[in-house]
Amino acid sequence: MSSAEDARDLPVTIDDVEAAAKTIAGAVVRTPSALSETLSDILGCTVVLKFEGFQFTAAYKERGARNRLAALDAGERACGVVAVSAGNHAQAVARHAHLLGIPATIVMPVTTPFVKVARTRHLGASVELNGADFAGALARGHELVAEGRTLVHPFDDPLVVAGQGTVALEVFEDHDDLDAIVVPVGGGGLVSGVAVVAAAKAPHVEVVGVQVETYPGMVNALGGLVPPAGGTTMAEGIAVATPGVVTEQIVRALRPELLVVPETAVEDAVALVLEIEKVVVEGAAAAAIAALAVHRDRFAGRTVGVVLTGANIDPRLLASVIERGLVRSGRLARLRVALDDRPGALGALLTVVGGAGANLLEVQHQRLFADIPARAADVDLVVECLDAAHRDAIVAAVEAAGYRARLLSMAD
Amino acid sequence: MSSAEDARDLPVTIDDVEAAAKTIAGAVVRTPSALSETLSDILGCTVVLKFEGFQFTAAYKERGARNRLAALDAGERACGVVAVSAGNHAQAVARHAHLLGIPATIVMPVTTPFVKVARTRHLGASVELNGADFAGALARGHELVAEGRTLVHPFDDPLVVAGQGTVALEVFEDHDDLDAIVVPVGGGGLVSGVAVVAAAKAPHVEVVGVQVETYPGMVNALGGLVPPAGGTTMAEGIAVATPGVVTEQIVRALRPELLVVPETAVEDAVALVLEIEKVVVEGAAAAAIAALAVHRDRFAGRTVGVVLTGANIDPRLLASVIERGLVRSGRLARLRVALDDRPGALGALLTVVGGAGANLLEVQHQRLFADIPARAADVDLVVECLDAAHRDAIVAAVEAAGYRARLLSMAD
Repeated sequence: MSSAEDARDLPVTIDDVEAAAKTIAGAVVRTPSALSETLSDILGCTVVLKFEGFQFTAAYKERGARNRLAALDAGERACGVVAVSAGNHAQAVARHAHLLGIPATIVMPVTTPFVKVARTRHLGASVELNGADFAGALARGHELVAEGRTLVHPFDDPLVVAGQGTVALEVFEDHDDLDAIVVPVGGGGLVSGVAVVAAAKAPHVEVVGVQVETYPGMVNALGGLVPPAGGTTMAEGIAVATPGVVTEQIVRALRPELLVVPETAVEDAVALVLEIEKVVVEGAAAAAIAALAVHRDRFAGRTVGVVLTGANIDPRLLASVIERGLVRSGRLARLRVALDDRPGALGALLTVVGGAGANLLEVQHQRLFADIPARAADVDLVVECLDAAHRDAIVAAVEAAGYRARLLSMAD
Repeated sequence: MSSAEDARDLPVTIDDVEAAAKTIAGAVVRTPSALSETLSDILGCTVVLKFEGFQFTAAYKERGARNRLAALDAGERACGVVAVSAGNHAQAVARHAHLLGIPATIVMPVTTPFVKVARTRHLGASVELNGADFAGALARGHELVAEGRTLVHPFDDPLVVAGQGTVALEVFEDHDDLDAIVVPVGGGGLVSGVAVVAAAKAPHVEVVGVQVETYPGMVNALGGLVPPAGGTTMAEGIAVATPGVVTEQIVRALRPELLVVPETAVEDAVALVLEIEKVVVEGAAAAAIAALAVHRDRFAGRTVGVVLTGANIDPRLLASVIERGLVRSGRLARLRVALDDRPGALGALLTVVGGAGANLLEVQHQRLFADIPARAADVDLVVECLDAAHRDAIVAAVEAAGYRARLLSMAD
């Protein structure tokens, strides 16, 4: 840490985190963590996973929310709380306000999918749909605060930061051999809390925060020169343009290392964790695993704790990630074959394809706009193969039977 | 149990299971178990899940394999073992033979996907592809046994049964309030072991075995009249036509209740566990959850332990289960709309659909074979909706704009 500041002058201290651990004990799941032999093999470092997806609402956000809510006095509890979120923070506040008997209003944009609204209501909160987007919902949230309710901020609050830090207490308690601890960074609540704990309890452990290239908010706030790549991200949980005041102050003082990962690496990491660990992780959580793959040399041979922060991912997105992974691994393939435009031609081709053991999923016969002679036609086949070698053997069999065939990529 | 037999006369006793627990300790994961509040709400009983997907090879089969392998004498170890399996048993034997320094040959049919071959080889076994199907592979396995190797049977072996029973010791140790314990049944190794433990340690706990309607092998062996429904099952792990001699004897004596579930319930259960628990379960494991849904009255209000036996599911199948779940919940929909065959007609329709907030995924324009007048055309749209209410609102908006629209089911 910089010489100008002392850890005891920061807005959150180790005492705050330890107090938070006592406060949330029994109300928030003490999640398991475990070494993953296979991920360690694949990533070239010893990987210890902390499974925050085991929280009731499937994300670590309950830690901070519970700690913040528990600190309200009787008057504040009676007036109720408000949170502006359609994500994990909404569910965390809804659940713990309900458990503590505190009225909670969650403001979400009007476009929020009903499933998120329903889930949050089911947890015991009142959901108000207001505002065309997040900024509009936030404006409504401030109105409710002006009427006397307490805002529960998703990250820029010392009690929230202290709550999130409890995850690091548990990791260090379970694993005393870590060289580094890696967490995703959006607003900075988690990385701040973890940095406070590491500085006090395990100063030899390097704290590493990971941002996606579309939202390098903390990196930029600290004067980094990484330009936002633009576009959307599947790591919604860390899609935060500007960190908090409290969190930025802590990060400036304790200087966790910040790494940036590309969107494609996040997708790969979701698929990897699902395949190897058989658990769902959302994009934000996967970003931390992506950092180990992208910055492989940085972590080579080290023992690294990774906080898998949450498991709330859109099911269609998850299905799509799985299928794209199958294309990359050669188990799904799309072939374009030029075919004479005569009776029986497609049947003959499909007999060759079937003979090579390909399971045919889709056929598209394209006659008008193909870049081939007039008496020919292009046919696109989607086939299921055993693996990449089998896929290549299928292409070879088609070519050996006298056809011109081309494997199409995802970009075609 | 029947009066004619005494538990001590069975091929597996509680002493055998307790010895197995000591034998496998440290080599096999002592998996976590937890009450699921949300599944309990949904299923109408208190659901405690035992996560065997946390085993290294993601299935409980390691328990029996380890116990069997550890009992080999020095001569048998030197000669090596053979297993015939392309599934969880193959990986379990491969891993633990390797850890114990025992040469292992796993025979798989020649059609086995390379990914399974590669994974088993990676675990340290020699894989031999032999036989067009399982029977062919088994014949080769017997040849290897004739040459002096020891066969590690997937279920019909007292040491394997005793190993599988250790899962029940752990469940009962962690949860002393169960009314029932539910496990999937294929060859019967797991249910036999669990029944032995329950009879000795928790005789008030009902043991319930679950089979899929396509493979009610144990039910039939015991004289049940459930005819096989035929067809394939996604519960490959319990697709066993005939139980073992040892396992059938134990089941006849201890009489666990046997339930049968349809294939559709298995698919629903895979989707449910993934959505709620954020963990992958394979079809066989899901069958046990399916039993709670299908036989809801049977379990109403009870506290039920469910062994989620494994997490190895084909990724394309998993993606498909997720997507079919989205169709059922109204988040994916296919509409067929009759359209005048004139320039701009499709553009006008899509403007209406977009205005209703539908995210368009696919368009198919069908002119020739539609059952409508000659100057019209059918267009099929696949759209993403927020939920079922939004889907219905989209259909209503299309109809309000003067189109004839029809929601297509998965069967259309």
